Amino acid sequence: VRYVFHDQLDGLLGELAEICAEVEDAVKLATAALLTGDSSVAERVISADAEIDAARDRVEDTALSILSLQAPVAGDLRVIVSALRMISELERMGDLAVHVAKIARLRTPNVAVPEQAFATICRMAEVAESMVGRAAHIVRDRDVEAAVALRAEDEEMDRLRRSSFTELLGDDWVGGVEAAVDVALLGRYYERIADHAVSVAGRVVFIVTGQKPTFT
Amino acid sequence: VRYVFHDQLDGLLGELAEICAEVEDAVKLATAALLTGDSSVAERVISADAEIDAARDRVEDTALSILSLQAPVAGDLRVIVSALRMISELERMGDLAVHVAKIARLRTPNVAVPEQAFATICRMAEVAESMVGRAAHIVRDRDVEAAVALRAEDEEMDRLRRSSFTELLGDDWVGGVEAAVDVALLGRYYERIADHAVSVAGRVVFIVTGQKPTFT
Repeated sequence: VRYVFHDQLDGLLGELAEICAEVEDAVKLATAALLTGDSSVAERVISADAEIDAARDRVEDTALSILSLQAPVAGDLRVIVSALRMISELERMGDLAVHVAKIARLRTPNVAVPEQAFATICRMAEVAESMVGRAAHIVRDRDVEAAVALRAEDEEMDRLRRSSFTELLGDDWVGGVEAAVDVALLGRYYERIADHAVSVAGRVVFIVTGQKPTFT
Repeated sequence: VRYVFHDQLDGLLGELAEICAEVEDAVKLATAALLTGDSSVAERVISADAEIDAARDRVEDTALSILSLQAPVAGDLRVIVSALRMISELERMGDLAVHVAKIARLRTPNVAVPEQAFATICRMAEVAESMVGRAAHIVRDRDVEAAVALRAEDEEMDRLRRSSFTELLGDDWVGGVEAAVDVALLGRYYERIADHAVSVAGRVVFIVTGQKPTFT
């Protein structure tokens, strides 16, 4: 029974890693829609989010069923409780990718991001996507070292967010109010995606070490 | 033992309701700071957030300890699992109140919200605060009917958000780029506070009925 049980726990983390990889795809596609103004790509992101929501329900049901049938303790309990937390973070990340796609769709066939903000938003998108991809590996491999390292990448995101505000609020901003609002919200969405990636990784630290990371 | 156990579960929900009331205060104070430009009030919100974070840690520890010592099932298990979810929502709501307070602090002694956006932002703040207050009661009384009713209030928030964008992006907007960005982000923060309140209330539906609400 114990062997089967540990297979279940590994299966749960494997499923979370897969969902994290789906979120990575959603972020990548949402960014592609944003930077090209392609509404069909934006629509794909928006409609695919239902799959992430369905996966969330599946993981929650599995976790609840393991909790009530197996009454896990110690490290096993930490896996289940963390899985519940991680799945709700992943579901939010999917929603944030949808928010990015919706801004893209709102401005299509134009591109929401004006030239002055393009490089910074591109880099934010790259960093967010990379962090989500790394979080998927961290969950799959229970990699504590990589989880801790992910925080450094989040610092780049914070710097990018500040640069973005400096651009928007500078005297030479020619993008107007609408583009400024779009860029400010986009920055917020990518920043939150990155925060959630850090938090997902932090839960892996908790699973492995029992220590609550200081960066949940 | 079972009596003591149910006291523990009631205590956990009572503590969540109290934290929810603390979040309500944080939203109220953050809004006061925002609408008056009073930086000392903003500072109070920012420093008080550590208490909400500490409460989050306490609730998580209690929930984990109950899970491993009592191995609850069925309705009792739903209380614990929901408490874990609700405490992470409440912690985020506290962070969002801090974000509002930080925008207030950034513009002090001026008021971040220009006259053109004042009425809409005031109403968003009122709705958010009221929803958080109602969520506290819903948690304390396990009030499913009120939880379902809370969704209607959230629809007002969605309408306010749309009105706010119409104001910002209209030809007669005289607030400039900086105020537009502030107002767009403030709208986002209040909207998210409201979303989390709905989600906290939704978990009460799950605790009582075992049915996942469609609005988590």
